[in-house]
Amino acid sequence: MRDFLPADKARRERVLAVIRERYRAHGFDEIETPVMEDYDRLHAGLGGDNEKLSFSILKRGMDADGIRAAADDQAALADLGLRYDLTVPLARFYATHRAQLPTVFRSVQIAPVWRAERPQKGRYRQFMQCDIDIIGDASARAEAELMIASLDVLDALGLVGGSIRVNDRRALDAMLDVFGFAPDQRPGVLITIDKLDKVGPSGVVAELRGRGVNASAVDAFAAYLDRPASVPSFDEAGIRATLPDGIPDEIVAHLVDLGDTVAAARGGEVPLVFDPFLVRGMGYYTGTIFELAHPSVDYSLGGGGRYDGMIGRFLGQQVPAVGFSIGFERIVDLLPETGSEGERSVVLVHDRDVPIAQLLSLKTALIGGGARVRVEQRPKNMKALLERSTADGYASFATVNVDTTPETLEIKPLS
Amino acid sequence: MRDFLPADKARRERVLAVIRERYRAHGFDEIETPVMEDYDRLHAGLGGDNEKLSFSILKRGMDADGIRAAADDQAALADLGLRYDLTVPLARFYATHRAQLPTVFRSVQIAPVWRAERPQKGRYRQFMQCDIDIIGDASARAEAELMIASLDVLDALGLVGGSIRVNDRRALDAMLDVFGFAPDQRPGVLITIDKLDKVGPSGVVAELRGRGVNASAVDAFAAYLDRPASVPSFDEAGIRATLPDGIPDEIVAHLVDLGDTVAAARGGEVPLVFDPFLVRGMGYYTGTIFELAHPSVDYSLGGGGRYDGMIGRFLGQQVPAVGFSIGFERIVDLLPETGSEGERSVVLVHDRDVPIAQLLSLKTALIGGGARVRVEQRPKNMKALLERSTADGYASFATVNVDTTPETLEIKPLS
Repeated sequence: MRDFLPADKARRERVLAVIRERYRAHGFDEIETPVMEDYDRLHAGLGGDNEKLSFSILKRGMDADGIRAAADDQAALADLGLRYDLTVPLARFYATHRAQLPTVFRSVQIAPVWRAERPQKGRYRQFMQCDIDIIGDASARAEAELMIASLDVLDALGLVGGSIRVNDRRALDAMLDVFGFAPDQRPGVLITIDKLDKVGPSGVVAELRGRGVNASAVDAFAAYLDRPASVPSFDEAGIRATLPDGIPDEIVAHLVDLGDTVAAARGGEVPLVFDPFLVRGMGYYTGTIFELAHPSVDYSLGGGGRYDGMIGRFLGQQVPAVGFSIGFERIVDLLPETGSEGERSVVLVHDRDVPIAQLLSLKTALIGGGARVRVEQRPKNMKALLERSTADGYASFATVNVDTTPETLEIKPLS
Repeated sequence: MRDFLPADKARRERVLAVIRERYRAHGFDEIETPVMEDYDRLHAGLGGDNEKLSFSILKRGMDADGIRAAADDQAALADLGLRYDLTVPLARFYATHRAQLPTVFRSVQIAPVWRAERPQKGRYRQFMQCDIDIIGDASARAEAELMIASLDVLDALGLVGGSIRVNDRRALDAMLDVFGFAPDQRPGVLITIDKLDKVGPSGVVAELRGRGVNASAVDAFAAYLDRPASVPSFDEAGIRATLPDGIPDEIVAHLVDLGDTVAAARGGEVPLVFDPFLVRGMGYYTGTIFELAHPSVDYSLGGGGRYDGMIGRFLGQQVPAVGFSIGFERIVDLLPETGSEGERSVVLVHDRDVPIAQLLSLKTALIGGGARVRVEQRPKNMKALLERSTADGYASFATVNVDTTPETLEIKPLS
């Protein structure tokens, strides 16, 4: 867990403001849920490995007997927990408030989540998630809207040139069928395929052979991995050429539809890349899966997918849903340390003997004119003060002595 | 705990943006701390009654023996807890990061806190706090800056005409001395005086007589309560006339200084009211205490005071500090349910047969022009759709059929 000092916090708030504004422009409605959810809901099997990492809230008002009885069932010690993602709370929110929401509900959530990760570089136990979800639309337009809005966020943050890797869980399943893997081997095989970026094709094939799955299926898959690599166009011809024969038409049609829709919104540009080996870990995905990429980094800047089964778990009725989580913490790290404040900002450095009335009327006048104003007493080391002011995001300064008036105040740039 | 639906959430974010922007303009630097703090720090005696209301995080990885052993010491079950205020985390933050902060540090924190309140109207277990604090300035200018900035926040939210009730804990103590209460009777007497707004002067006197404190002191206090009421000016003459004789000069001088400083920043206006019976509950206040008032409501919209002792508890070195917490939840409730979005916002209502490409290029063009756009398929009940769009904060709509082009799109106001 981290403290955020002023410069870091300002940068985070700048990024959040852009994300919030862009997603709202695209018609997403912001909602908020409490950080605590019922313990049982957080442990209902929808959170995957994150359930094990969740922080639990100690039940209040337990007596000594109750605690002793809980020694063999720790769940009895907790009735609430901190959310580990924003998807489980969204499903609960939607089931509760559905009658007050639009038929197709486009939500944005910008909020922290908690996971008891082992301390390591770049992993935090509290971190921000920014999720957008569309509930109630089974068509590829929903996926397309998530992608279009998220690419717009990257553009607005100055990270132009973003693209999206796309696959479909149903295509993955069909592909494994085509190669001859048995349905019960799928989960293990997918875990291995997910390591392709790390261990390469030969590593994946070796691990599959070690898994004891049927050799002919591994041979077929190895041959497919060996095919000449090319970046296919994101259209029917390109997707068909990338996939092995035998993938059902409706899966390909959904992907083609998605590409067409993104093209329509972006004036013909289709910054999508079909990646038949994209897996994504969560068990709840049922269709399209995708990750946001940017040429400046080799890791993804967010990911998501279709999860048509989950809302139904809470509602007792199937509702299509698709979501995307933009990688806020990674994006913040990509952006410059100190940005322009985007506003006039002035440090007033005053002599010790300047009367308060004089000083504050100068400050009030500057604030009234739209400036951000910090007041500092002149120190011995003026240079250090000016350097810190720059680091804290201020753009200009002015010195104030007993004779300074609003008319004679001279504002100079800090750097 | 509450879910916030889109209209509520939008209103809360609008208010937060104003608070954040105004406090920043006045030179406050925003910081953020983790929602979890060490259990021991949350139970060090600085949180008053809130310590008992704090939620604790179940320690991870406990075995059955450890849980059984904790039956007689529940604190052993938790190593972390959720913060119940922003003051304890600020003190910890300042002690940790002091070397990187300005000599006089003006902080703003906007973040949720948690208290296990019994469910009742208007009380929530999770709620937002917006605190500003100035650490490192013992002069009345620090209190004045908190007041000036907070009055500006009210003004910017359209709540003009705010004022501030002011007292000083040292004045209260001195007053009780003058009346003849013994020092060890003070805490109980203050608890009774704090009920003045609720039970009136006769109720307070009756309760004091019931407390068994010395009768002559109660008589003196009753006579003081009976003095002719008038609203004193916030200057030396007014404050002296309000207080009984015998209050030390330096206490009065600090209050006068405060009034002069506020006047300097607000062009001579002094929206301060001296209230010798203002107590405020927290035990850590050491000097000035104050509450924000507005003519539209009979409860306070925030409060704060000087707490020169607390930072020292963490730092091992005395550091003056003064803080103010603006009542975010109360202010949100005061403002109109739906405000203008402050932006162009359009609902595109399309016929079912409009091609996606046509629809999304219309949407993209509107977003590119600065609008917020929601897309809805035309329902049977068009009136209900338009009403909900209005409730959700949209200002205009346009219908789209297969022939609609950007040139023929007609945007109409919703209401």
